[in-house]
Amino acid sequence: MTDRPAHVVPVDLAKAYRLINHGPTVLVSAAHGGRRNVMAAAWNMPLDFAPPKVAVVIDRKTYTRELIEASGELVLCVPTRAQIEAVSQVGSTSGRGLDQATDKFEAAGLTTFRGDQVAAPLVEGCVAWLECKLLPEPEMAQRYDLFLAEVVAAWADSRVFDGGHWRPIDAAHSTLHHVAGGVFFTLGEPVKSRDGD
Amino acid sequence: MTDRPAHVVPVDLAKAYRLINHGPTVLVSAAHGGRRNVMAAAWNMPLDFAPPKVAVVIDRKTYTRELIEASGELVLCVPTRAQIEAVSQVGSTSGRGLDQATDKFEAAGLTTFRGDQVAAPLVEGCVAWLECKLLPEPEMAQRYDLFLAEVVAAWADSRVFDGGHWRPIDAAHSTLHHVAGGVFFTLGEPVKSRDGD
Repeated sequence: MTDRPAHVVPVDLAKAYRLINHGPTVLVSAAHGGRRNVMAAAWNMPLDFAPPKVAVVIDRKTYTRELIEASGELVLCVPTRAQIEAVSQVGSTSGRGLDQATDKFEAAGLTTFRGDQVAAPLVEGCVAWLECKLLPEPEMAQRYDLFLAEVVAAWADSRVFDGGHWRPIDAAHSTLHHVAGGVFFTLGEPVKSRDGD
Repeated sequence: MTDRPAHVVPVDLAKAYRLINHGPTVLVSAAHGGRRNVMAAAWNMPLDFAPPKVAVVIDRKTYTRELIEASGELVLCVPTRAQIEAVSQVGSTSGRGLDQATDKFEAAGLTTFRGDQVAAPLVEGCVAWLECKLLPEPEMAQRYDLFLAEVVAAWADSRVFDGGHWRPIDAAHSTLHHVAGGVFFTLGEPVKSRDGD
């Protein structure tokens, strides 16, 4: 795990929701007790503006969930089209039982850098990252696999998102929007309503 | 409110999640006691496959929420780029205080048709519809404005989604993915991972 790259800049927490408001599939990372893991989650959404909160569905059989529940922390990373094979791989395999030298990040060719507020790693090559602390709602987790969390730090690749706004995005840096079975939509052009600000 | 148009076909409930899995902004409609209303909600996601469930954030000041809580029912409609002005209008105005003759649908130029399982209307011109019954989680609503619901019927425009899969989508029929302030991403081309089925 390296230090934060220079192109990764902080995002004002009040605008952090904009990093996932358009519905991208995310990578969820977690770490606890010297172990770490990562999975894919299409089922995520903002839950509040300020303080920013998110909701994400995390299946009870996943190893990532064990680490999230043990640490109380997670990171949502927003991957790109260039990472489709890694997203698909971490979305369809388990990190349980892998050793620390070759964990699930390594197996998928994903490198990471350190966050600021949580121990869970941030995946390099993504365009946005939300460092989160779990909100204690164990009944929601038990009943629906639903996790709620507060965003305590947010980062973006300044070449793709800066000053609270997405910049024009080339094909390789499009976010991924999973439909099913390894098929994703990419982003097309942005459009604006007449009364948009 | 008219009968269901011929191009609107039922979607297998086990595949209903695919209608919103890619993160579109939806219209939320509700009806109760002879009144009806509609709002926009970017903060929605699937919550389960079978029986299908969804989660959606609905602000406590909205009139739609009053009707959802009174009726226990709602419909998520997936609008298109061609409807951007109506989506923006119902997303930024309240239906409270409008009369029944000129309600919020009428004011935004939206026509509707009848669903099969709930009284809330389905908005014409959308490409998908999820008829839902509320799951009783009043603490989640109170604490987070978060509503969970079971999908009891699902429909799609067969020209856009058929047999459980999205078909090639022309620009006008792209779903809308709200960023902020009336700016939306549209969909680009679909991409598939090597191990996608």
